[in-house]
Amino acid sequence: MNVAITGGGGFLGRRLAKALLSDPAISRITLADASEVEPFSDDRRLAIRRADLRDAGAARALADGVDVLFHLAAVVSGQAEAEFDLGMAVNLDATRSLLEAARAGNRRPTFVFTSSLAVFGPPLPGVVTEETAVHPRSSYGAQKAMGELLVCDFSRRGFVDGRVLRLPTVCVRPGRPNAAASSFVSSIIREPLNGEPANCPVGRDLELWLTSPKAVVANLVRGAGLPGDALGEGRIVNLPGVTVTVGEMIESLARVAGHGAAGRITFNSDEKVRRIVASWPARFDVARALALGFTRDNGFASLIEDYLSTEGRRAP
Amino acid sequence: MNVAITGGGGFLGRRLAKALLSDPAISRITLADASEVEPFSDDRRLAIRRADLRDAGAARALADGVDVLFHLAAVVSGQAEAEFDLGMAVNLDATRSLLEAARAGNRRPTFVFTSSLAVFGPPLPGVVTEETAVHPRSSYGAQKAMGELLVCDFSRRGFVDGRVLRLPTVCVRPGRPNAAASSFVSSIIREPLNGEPANCPVGRDLELWLTSPKAVVANLVRGAGLPGDALGEGRIVNLPGVTVTVGEMIESLARVAGHGAAGRITFNSDEKVRRIVASWPARFDVARALALGFTRDNGFASLIEDYLSTEGRRAP
Repeated sequence: MNVAITGGGGFLGRRLAKALLSDPAISRITLADASEVEPFSDDRRLAIRRADLRDAGAARALADGVDVLFHLAAVVSGQAEAEFDLGMAVNLDATRSLLEAARAGNRRPTFVFTSSLAVFGPPLPGVVTEETAVHPRSSYGAQKAMGELLVCDFSRRGFVDGRVLRLPTVCVRPGRPNAAASSFVSSIIREPLNGEPANCPVGRDLELWLTSPKAVVANLVRGAGLPGDALGEGRIVNLPGVTVTVGEMIESLARVAGHGAAGRITFNSDEKVRRIVASWPARFDVARALALGFTRDNGFASLIEDYLSTEGRRAP
Repeated sequence: MNVAITGGGGFLGRRLAKALLSDPAISRITLADASEVEPFSDDRRLAIRRADLRDAGAARALADGVDVLFHLAAVVSGQAEAEFDLGMAVNLDATRSLLEAARAGNRRPTFVFTSSLAVFGPPLPGVVTEETAVHPRSSYGAQKAMGELLVCDFSRRGFVDGRVLRLPTVCVRPGRPNAAASSFVSSIIREPLNGEPANCPVGRDLELWLTSPKAVVANLVRGAGLPGDALGEGRIVNLPGVTVTVGEMIESLARVAGHGAAGRITFNSDEKVRRIVASWPARFDVARALALGFTRDNGFASLIEDYLSTEGRRAP
């Protein structure tokens, strides 16, 4: 099986590739990224390719002969809000280019599209399902919602076999803060664990809907492996997550790493960030996802444990 | 006030222009259409322009200096299903070009976008509202849903002052059948009234959600005139309609024009048409629209009356 991953240089793309390499049925994995990717495995099935998917030729070259395409590449929420045209070009146009490339290949590849809880916004019901209307309150959310419609229509027409997975906010992301409005969600756990300060731009009462990278990778693999019949015409799945307030996250951090760690967090509000993140729902009914065999984290503490174990560490 | 109407050569565009010409506050109306439009008024405020809006230059020329833009141009449902790329180019790309043109003008024009009940599809709740998820089961519906997201995000960002009006199926359209999957909805009334045969490709029990052209024109004018504050962040309105079965439509026709007229209808099913039209909802809660001052037809008989009076006729 020939697999391609866009945004493959990101930490999720690399973790997904590592997970897929353990499957002997996979003969080739191409990681495509707009940025340079440092090699991280000497498995000969792995190829790394620099590609700007806004270019139809690059999209076509990547999709050529592929059985499964994971489309993770995106301009994140904060950046798509700050740079509207860039967000449209990458989050909408490149998704379309890739779908067109997959269609042109005439093989009807499996197309796994990572969407986001950011497609939702107020007014929100108490509990969100796949039958809840999307009202994005960010350009990122609007672009992801358009991408969803593209994947669904391309699937309905038989051009691709699409799966739209709506991710909760991923926490704890490794590395440095990024331009996502939700970047702080990882920072307020990661930086204190590393002995560094972090700022929380929202209040302690704000509820979030979170997933570990580990669960995301498992769910991406599950999404690709599901038979199309199991999904039926509804190609969209809200992935499972954990509902937690900022305050509860910090209490959990204190239990794992002590009050000193939790004390490294400051609370200077940032209205731009708060407006976007507070528009996202935090409570979902994920019955559909669970029935389809997607996995969920076992409470917020397991997200901290996933981070520590991935970094090869134990709780301090 | 300077107004432009795309798809202005269509019967709705022409009727809208006529209605707007009665408003002395309007200084100019430009009707843009991809096809030749026969002049229908010698009012000097009216200009007719041939324009292919997929061309960014044409879109920009049209939007230049405009205060209100009615974007009615579209490839209809049956044609967008048969010619996927054409539907994408007109229903998605031209909508985006026009929004970008309006944004470039830096005047934040009012942008009235005609969407459709076709954005919805199964699974459907008993009654559809603005909080119901869209699950389009046609490329036309998917393209309109993407257009809605564009108009909403361009509005949120302050590029345009958008209003998305989701139209019920319009009945009775004058003229000849077109490539819309719903074309028969007008044909089974119009052709018998004109002494001609018509075929109904769906069963008598199918429920439809209909509006007269008269109500659409009144609601387009209302949509443009509404203060943006009245809409708030939710730019989408499901316009009022009439719920009626095909059987009830034919009974109504028989009451107006006799059983001879109703006898001109044949029932040869067409699965392609049925699949699209049966995916649309027929029952809506339009409390939001009514609260905003949109109008509704007074039962299906008034749709027949609107047609006859517009054609300068009385019931035979």
